[in-house]
Amino acid sequence: MGFSVTILGNSSAKPTPHAHPSSQVVNLNEQYYLVDAGEGVQQQLIRRGINPLRLRAVFISHLHGDHCFGLFPLIATLGLEGKRTPLDIYAPAPMGDILEYHRRYFWDDLPYEVKWHEVRTTEHAIIMQNNTLEVWSIPLRHRVPTAGFLFKEKQPGLNVDKFKIEKYGLSIAQVVAAKRGEDITLESGEVIHNEELTYIPYQARSYAYLSDTAYSAKAAERVHGVDLLYHETTYSIREAKFAKGRGHSTTEEAAKAALKAEAKRLIIGHFSSRYKDHDALCAECREIFPNTDIAAEGMTFNIEEKR
Amino acid sequence: MGFSVTILGNSSAKPTPHAHPSSQVVNLNEQYYLVDAGEGVQQQLIRRGINPLRLRAVFISHLHGDHCFGLFPLIATLGLEGKRTPLDIYAPAPMGDILEYHRRYFWDDLPYEVKWHEVRTTEHAIIMQNNTLEVWSIPLRHRVPTAGFLFKEKQPGLNVDKFKIEKYGLSIAQVVAAKRGEDITLESGEVIHNEELTYIPYQARSYAYLSDTAYSAKAAERVHGVDLLYHETTYSIREAKFAKGRGHSTTEEAAKAALKAEAKRLIIGHFSSRYKDHDALCAECREIFPNTDIAAEGMTFNIEEKR
Repeated sequence: MGFSVTILGNSSAKPTPHAHPSSQVVNLNEQYYLVDAGEGVQQQLIRRGINPLRLRAVFISHLHGDHCFGLFPLIATLGLEGKRTPLDIYAPAPMGDILEYHRRYFWDDLPYEVKWHEVRTTEHAIIMQNNTLEVWSIPLRHRVPTAGFLFKEKQPGLNVDKFKIEKYGLSIAQVVAAKRGEDITLESGEVIHNEELTYIPYQARSYAYLSDTAYSAKAAERVHGVDLLYHETTYSIREAKFAKGRGHSTTEEAAKAALKAEAKRLIIGHFSSRYKDHDALCAECREIFPNTDIAAEGMTFNIEEKR
Repeated sequence: MGFSVTILGNSSAKPTPHAHPSSQVVNLNEQYYLVDAGEGVQQQLIRRGINPLRLRAVFISHLHGDHCFGLFPLIATLGLEGKRTPLDIYAPAPMGDILEYHRRYFWDDLPYEVKWHEVRTTEHAIIMQNNTLEVWSIPLRHRVPTAGFLFKEKQPGLNVDKFKIEKYGLSIAQVVAAKRGEDITLESGEVIHNEELTYIPYQARSYAYLSDTAYSAKAAERVHGVDLLYHETTYSIREAKFAKGRGHSTTEEAAKAALKAEAKRLIIGHFSSRYKDHDALCAECREIFPNTDIAAEGMTFNIEEKR
């Protein structure tokens, strides 16, 4: 199964001519999930070849405009595009009120339901799940209530080794039982242990989105072992005091979080518009956490299957 | 004095990868006025080299999202950019309520005042004026209350002919009196008529923005003699019935409006996303009103001084 993250926008609050505010798409097996929705997100989606009608759900980390002002035009367009199924939006309060006044003033004829699910930003909990995915809230430390999100693939079911099916002449019923994790007793009375017959096709993977936030050791612990970690790096290591006052992180703090989480890979962004040289910011992270890259607008990061 | 209109966006409701929704900037002598504010307007401004802090006022024709969803992020950014003077917004009700909701949820720390001035969409009236400009509301025919805008340069004051000052040896007091339109009595008792001494430096110019609207003969009459007319052309002449039902105009109707208004020049846009060939739509207008051009995103239309 494919598991990837596409960066639609990654700039901090102030716009630049060609950089868009925060927004990403998580794609797990062609199921698309939008993470934050800065201004222009609907255009960024179609520029990347992603039909907005394919979005399964939207996750909003916090109610600052640069993380959600693109949501409202997107909702309007989905109506024009003929959406009829509900759109699930996971976001902190008072997103429900904000959606309600948009409904009143702009969407009196919206042909589908917008369903708000409150994300409690002080709780670390499963906020959504389906057959393949769990999404967890991660409490963050910002100026307004903010949650990060951990996208955890569900552990796939057991596969039965084809060669063993042949070797032992297993029936369909026996294969199904082996998939359930059971041992199999052959007609001869021989018991074949499940471990011999089955294997896990791949290890479940995970992606964590931690933005906007000051450094949080607890958040890092909660995403322990994550395969891909996005952590905001609004400021250089040289602006540490400023970062703390604004509820943001430095490059050094993002790298420390990746170390503490024992993340496999770190991607960074949400750079203050004061910085022109993003490679220099990336280099600051690599001093501490070498496997760091810039989550540049337009890039897609694949999380490979692990056997 | 310069008088120009720059097109920031010109697409109708549904977005395309690279076309932005409705927004324009009127520049009269380096005073900038924003007309409608579709999503992405703040980026479109900086892409065109226009510092958003220089906007004197904002005019919103109606409260459909593709004409105003860019206003709210723009207001937030102006705060980050250090704006301290009030921002005047001319828009139909209930824009006041909408701004109030945004203030409550997103702008509790905005460092400047956002002043809403109600535009009554059934009235043809001066809604704003200063030393150089009058802005008139033009009632339009759309699905929600909508006003177009007529930007009328004020008639410049009289200039006194330098050669006549020398010829008659006029004093400063006499020149000032002539500028006021008075006749001048020389020491000899000779009376010099004002028309001999003075001239109008240039004729006042005008720009009209008529979008969104079904054809309105009355609106065309109210912008009679306009130098530059923007009229929406959401549909081809072949979709006339559809246009009427949606409160929009065809190419033919826009051209008829320009004829009726005796406009000097017509620019068109707000094309439905179904049309790929905008030149074909322009050709339909030119059959009726030859001096028509597409108000393409990024173009600037100058209104030359007329002597």
